[in-house]
Amino acid sequence: MATVRKLDALDDVIHQKVRLGVMSSLMASGEADFNFLKGALGVSDGNLSTHLTVLEDHGYIIVHKEFVGKKPRTTYTPTLAGRRAFELYVTALESLVRAG
Amino acid sequence: MATVRKLDALDDVIHQKVRLGVMSSLMASGEADFNFLKGALGVSDGNLSTHLTVLEDHGYIIVHKEFVGKKPRTTYTPTLAGRRAFELYVTALESLVRAG
Repeated sequence: MATVRKLDALDDVIHQKVRLGVMSSLMASGEADFNFLKGALGVSDGNLSTHLTVLEDHGYIIVHKEFVGKKPRTTYTPTLAGRRAFELYVTALESLVRAG
Repeated sequence: MATVRKLDALDDVIHQKVRLGVMSSLMASGEADFNFLKGALGVSDGNLSTHLTVLEDHGYIIVHKEFVGKKPRTTYTPTLAGRRAFELYVTALESLVRAG
């Protein structure tokens, strides 16, 4: 595949570093809550929220809100579309960095 | 390695898509000229110039200008520092996307 098409195949929704971290975490763990992601990625509440909203708006993750006792807990899971987009991204990236 | 440290290890100079395309091309071919990169990456003169300057300013590529007959030709080669930065980037990225 030509380099230009490999670059186009690098989904901008996933390529952004915080979102790449979120998707990598969710692919590895299946689900994660807000505080786990915040600690794992070392980002502020606002920054994480912004990027989670982008992923949700693109249908890559599902948000689940519940109460554990009286404390709210928000968890995130990747959708099938999100998993597929992540796999395509990784394939395109590996192809790009290995062969230019 | 924690996810936050893996994200920090993703060199921003290389992570940007056009620069990632340039570095991938140069790693694969050893050198390339401006017009080849422009066609390979599908970007404008101005956009490519901007990103080549960033890579040069960070010491990741060397610019070589010559005349072929009366036509100027500008070629780019990765430096040792650029090659090392690229390898570190790829290693960090693979670690991130495989294990979150």
